[in-house]
Amino acid sequence: MTTTEQTRTLAERYFATMSARAWHDFAELLTDDVRYDLPQTGERIVGKDKYLRFNQEYPGDWQLTVTRLVVDGDSAAASMQFVVGEQEMVGLVFLEVRDGLVAQVTDFWPEPYDAPPGREHLTEQAISERDRFAGF
Amino acid sequence: MTTTEQTRTLAERYFATMSARAWHDFAELLTDDVRYDLPQTGERIVGKDKYLRFNQEYPGDWQLTVTRLVVDGDSAAASMQFVVGEQEMVGLVFLEVRDGLVAQVTDFWPEPYDAPPGREHLTEQAISERDRFAGF
Repeated sequence: MTTTEQTRTLAERYFATMSARAWHDFAELLTDDVRYDLPQTGERIVGKDKYLRFNQEYPGDWQLTVTRLVVDGDSAAASMQFVVGEQEMVGLVFLEVRDGLVAQVTDFWPEPYDAPPGREHLTEQAISERDRFAGF
Repeated sequence: MTTTEQTRTLAERYFATMSARAWHDFAELLTDDVRYDLPQTGERIVGKDKYLRFNQEYPGDWQLTVTRLVVDGDSAAASMQFVVGEQEMVGLVFLEVRDGLVAQVTDFWPEPYDAPPGREHLTEQAISERDRFAGF
């Protein structure tokens, strides 16, 4: 069992090293059999080497900022603002920790869509400062 | 400051009462000025009455199951499996608590998409048991 504070330190380091493309340091945070799931595409990546390569090869001059980090025992949830050129996206990530290392990563990438009709009497339009979509 | 364990109890009750459509009990968990944000559409709903109505009026015979709950001080993150007829969706929710009540809800609804080319050498296809998309 990893404590909440150990998981918090690990998760902060996970995002900091990813953001800095400090791949050697990033790799040290992962279990050898780390699993990465993208449920929206059904893709899974298994193993530290492949997951590292996936990140290293990810195209575009992206920048990421962690906008929420919620940590609970050996689990963490985060939201990220992800910027590539003119495009702004929100990434949502769940991490699971085993023996002080990241063992499972599940990513979600929601996209903007038009508000469905029929609820205009309840809603207003608001630009979120924290969760921004642009360039879709 | 709300403790993690108070927030956990509140979040569990939030999803249980929503799931049961126990709207009277659900309403008692919300601040009067509760704010609901849907960053993907830019919609915002402000106030307990409107947010309650939004939920009550939400169309379809939906069923929800909480698949993750991560709680940290006065914040919580959750994933839900949301089923309406043949359609299965994943909802991601961040809650913020004030004075023991839910003050802010931020929802994301990712959708399935085709895996981009160029990373087949790293990925396999895996059906997630936990995060299911169907009927899109």
